[in-house]
Amino acid sequence: MANQLTQLTGVFSALADPTRRAIVGALGRGPTSVSVLAEPFDMALPSFMKHLSVLERSGVIRSSKSGRVRTCELRPKPLSQAEAWIARQRAVWETRTDRMSALVEQLHQEDFDRGRP
Amino acid sequence: MANQLTQLTGVFSALADPTRRAIVGALGRGPTSVSVLAEPFDMALPSFMKHLSVLERSGVIRSSKSGRVRTCELRPKPLSQAEAWIARQRAVWETRTDRMSALVEQLHQEDFDRGRP
Repeated sequence: MANQLTQLTGVFSALADPTRRAIVGALGRGPTSVSVLAEPFDMALPSFMKHLSVLERSGVIRSSKSGRVRTCELRPKPLSQAEAWIARQRAVWETRTDRMSALVEQLHQEDFDRGRP
Repeated sequence: MANQLTQLTGVFSALADPTRRAIVGALGRGPTSVSVLAEPFDMALPSFMKHLSVLERSGVIRSSKSGRVRTCELRPKPLSQAEAWIARQRAVWETRTDRMSALVEQLHQEDFDRGRP
């Protein structure tokens, strides 16, 4: 449980940056070398590597080196856990608003039954 | 578009903290006064108020004051936008892995048709 809390914090923190979200978007299309991944970004390589490092520490991506080429790939599970966390909050909220709507409907019906429009 | 980028950054940043996620969880059950909301947290009120302020700036919650009581409530739209962003990344990733599975299946079938088990 503590691990999952830490992981959620890491994942949300990793996504709290437009460059890192763009990297996640690019890696959705498949594993990519760091140099190809960095190309569209107007950013010095060390800054770009820092973003990759934040993403890798959060578990959202992983990288491996073959010869001189480092390749990054998406790990979908941490993203799914973050999505599931938000979905759970939405479910609680929606259940409550559904119950409130039902209650309002019931009160209207009771007024109507008593002949008070 | 720029606004939505900023908003997503704010929402993910707001969720990158276990106390703030717990506040979101509590507010899913309905609008709550700050004092009731703060009760379960072992935290000085000014620190707690800072967390509320981060959540409010991100748009995830809003608060209003009536007399001496400040009440917070959840605003579900920013959370839904963050959830939708993750869902879109997952859709891209799943489409790719489905295509890859189909390709592997096709190659196996071609080998089989040529009599190479």
